[in-house]
Amino acid sequence: MLKKILVANRGEIAVRIIRACKELNIKTVAVFSEADHDALHVRIADEAYCIGPVSSTDSYLNFTNIMSVATLTEVDGIHPGYGFLSENADFAEICGACNITFIGPSPWAINQMGTKDVARTTMEKAGVPVVPGSKGIIQSPEEGAKVAGSIGYPVIIKATAGGGGKGIRVARNEDELHKGISITQKEAQANFGNPGVYLEKYIEDFRHVEIQVLADNYGNVIHLGERDCTIQRRLQKLVEESPSPALDEKIREQMGEASVKAAEAVEYTGAGTIEFIYDHHQKNFYFMEMNTRIQVEHPVTEMVTGIDLIKEQILVASGKKLSYTQEEVRFEGWSMECRINAENPSKNFMPSPGKIEMYLPPGGLGVRVDSAVFPGYTISPYYDSMIAKVITYGKDRDEAMAKMKRALEEFIIEGVHTTIPFHLRLLDHDVFKGGDFNTKFLETYSIMTEDPNE
Amino acid sequence: MLKKILVANRGEIAVRIIRACKELNIKTVAVFSEADHDALHVRIADEAYCIGPVSSTDSYLNFTNIMSVATLTEVDGIHPGYGFLSENADFAEICGACNITFIGPSPWAINQMGTKDVARTTMEKAGVPVVPGSKGIIQSPEEGAKVAGSIGYPVIIKATAGGGGKGIRVARNEDELHKGISITQKEAQANFGNPGVYLEKYIEDFRHVEIQVLADNYGNVIHLGERDCTIQRRLQKLVEESPSPALDEKIREQMGEASVKAAEAVEYTGAGTIEFIYDHHQKNFYFMEMNTRIQVEHPVTEMVTGIDLIKEQILVASGKKLSYTQEEVRFEGWSMECRINAENPSKNFMPSPGKIEMYLPPGGLGVRVDSAVFPGYTISPYYDSMIAKVITYGKDRDEAMAKMKRALEEFIIEGVHTTIPFHLRLLDHDVFKGGDFNTKFLETYSIMTEDPNE
Repeated sequence: MLKKILVANRGEIAVRIIRACKELNIKTVAVFSEADHDALHVRIADEAYCIGPVSSTDSYLNFTNIMSVATLTEVDGIHPGYGFLSENADFAEICGACNITFIGPSPWAINQMGTKDVARTTMEKAGVPVVPGSKGIIQSPEEGAKVAGSIGYPVIIKATAGGGGKGIRVARNEDELHKGISITQKEAQANFGNPGVYLEKYIEDFRHVEIQVLADNYGNVIHLGERDCTIQRRLQKLVEESPSPALDEKIREQMGEASVKAAEAVEYTGAGTIEFIYDHHQKNFYFMEMNTRIQVEHPVTEMVTGIDLIKEQILVASGKKLSYTQEEVRFEGWSMECRINAENPSKNFMPSPGKIEMYLPPGGLGVRVDSAVFPGYTISPYYDSMIAKVITYGKDRDEAMAKMKRALEEFIIEGVHTTIPFHLRLLDHDVFKGGDFNTKFLETYSIMTEDPNE
Repeated sequence: MLKKILVANRGEIAVRIIRACKELNIKTVAVFSEADHDALHVRIADEAYCIGPVSSTDSYLNFTNIMSVATLTEVDGIHPGYGFLSENADFAEICGACNITFIGPSPWAINQMGTKDVARTTMEKAGVPVVPGSKGIIQSPEEGAKVAGSIGYPVIIKATAGGGGKGIRVARNEDELHKGISITQKEAQANFGNPGVYLEKYIEDFRHVEIQVLADNYGNVIHLGERDCTIQRRLQKLVEESPSPALDEKIREQMGEASVKAAEAVEYTGAGTIEFIYDHHQKNFYFMEMNTRIQVEHPVTEMVTGIDLIKEQILVASGKKLSYTQEEVRFEGWSMECRINAENPSKNFMPSPGKIEMYLPPGGLGVRVDSAVFPGYTISPYYDSMIAKVITYGKDRDEAMAKMKRALEEFIIEGVHTTIPFHLRLLDHDVFKGGDFNTKFLETYSIMTEDPNE
């Protein structure tokens, strides 16, 4: 087993990982930027070291400083969390070169999935459904027009080095396509250092459904069912749940099997997520991308399966076999997660950094809070604005929603604006309650109107 | 279904009940003493009314004021929680007379179990094992000496109107017995208005194991397995867990069946607990008493069964059938609860009332906190000193303990002394970790020594 782990992250995920390590009796090393010296992850770790100034590039993305701390503190593992270095194959490579276990998949698997057109081709070969589109990179607008003509407009132009909603553009006709390809290429070159773009049919009416997978170093791959992340704002997930209200048993099984194939195709190890576009009308699903790391919304899967994903990551990285076979994975009840951000939902979700004067998270049966804030903590404007993830668990969707409502009503956060009012309105919305909606929910229905008094 | 419930209690159990009502879409009325006007249960209820001064007799035990609020607010149910009026048959009777549902068993069932020698006789008739002892009330020390002679010393003298560790005395020889009977009779007359005492063989080396039962108005009775509450200090439970590390499947089944018989014998309805003396060496168990109400430690059962006991109480009181058959009750994993009190464990658990300056409960996977405190809340010297119940859930006892340790280490409570240091030492004690101990654990092993610096 790994004996000492450096957590190369901040916020709630750093706290989440440190908690798992404590429960496994593994020593922990926290790292922090100058803005985070009072942070909770710094306080609860066994050791903590400053790795640079507030800028992420100079701290949480700073290979040299992180590896220096790792070497000096003699850790045998590094957990990258999500974001920051979590999908950086070079960083994973360097860890290996320093004889430190990167808690995640191989650099090769990260690259296979990180390069979007390669991932697409790999998936197609593995028999995982992909959205109709180009065979690999488009060399010219003319080639693009030919592909678009055959699959039909609208199409989506995607930078192969993009991901997470960045480097994509929709084209509804040939004119938009020509312009779109050259702009996306230029942006992709500037942002990702790789101008390659490819085309896919643009499916407008769909749900975001993803499958959690776990794999060990002995060829065992299992899936832990789906998460439905259809409620999004500008491609950022706001609410996630498991199971999905839109899947039937047959699709669930097919999606699970496809995800295991996807992971096997890149010899995946550890925890990963296969994201799908789910056409809930035609009951077709298509590979969107794979996140080769733990995700923000992993807790809803933990609640319905009873499996601790962070511990499984650590066990797998320690060379253990998976603790569960596919047959042993059981699904029970319903879980929902709301991301509570320091934003003002009445002001178009304007960030609301500042000092949290009063803080009391909700508790009781079926309510889990993953957070790194405390009374007196200052939400920094420099990092993402998440205050807490509230996760509820009930015997069915209605109970999970009822628990979420009462939990959010109880949650006391004073000093900053939060998205709690938004979530409470969403929970009262008949369409949301009914469970039948697509990713355009927030564009379609008016949840929060501008408050003239704000 | 009940539509509006008055919660005749305070503290964490009042909050627990209000939470369940909110999730069931039932309106709530809180009542409070003058000392509790800022309390959390007052804040989260739909309505709240002061029912008297700080003295419990004049407020939380004040029938007239509570029934006045109930009538004026037009509630259709009253939940008594634990303590206070929860086992008061007269109060249950008055609720019925006012056409308000008392959320608990019938006054008759309360009396059958509240009168200890009657309960003993009823259980014996029902085939539930009881400790060898007198047939009903002892009329004289001479009669007592005869009984003691036949069952053998030591014996325990118990006031029939006592309970919860009050009104009991051990006698190790005839001389102690003679004195003990007359003192206990006098005390029982003074404290309970009933001088009746009876005798039982005193079993010194035992575990406290209890069974949760649920029953509806249609004759359905189920049990939800055991809780082990062997870690006690002066008969007050400090740590509870489910399952018990001392029970095998056969005993578990026998104890469960005996508990169902016990509940059936008094036509029980709602949630109740049959407490047993478990002789873990001989693998014999004996009826101790039945608590005809919800118990402090009910959450550990909720965690391992997934059944919400407060909701079941409300459903049964609303005339619904139990939501589960015995066959549908499944046990999964391990749960532990530590009661965190405002007491100084280094000073012989001296109460430590005062203002909580800083408060941050632990969170994350498998950690539940039931509490009614918040930053700035003042722990009153007038009521019990509980700050919070920390409940953990893991796949086995080791994981539940590891989670408890990390949760208690994270728990920030500043301004008062707490029993957290005691629990942390207990969790590190090899005998506790091993699971093989009896109710004298704290007398046998030195957990906290007086701290000369305190």
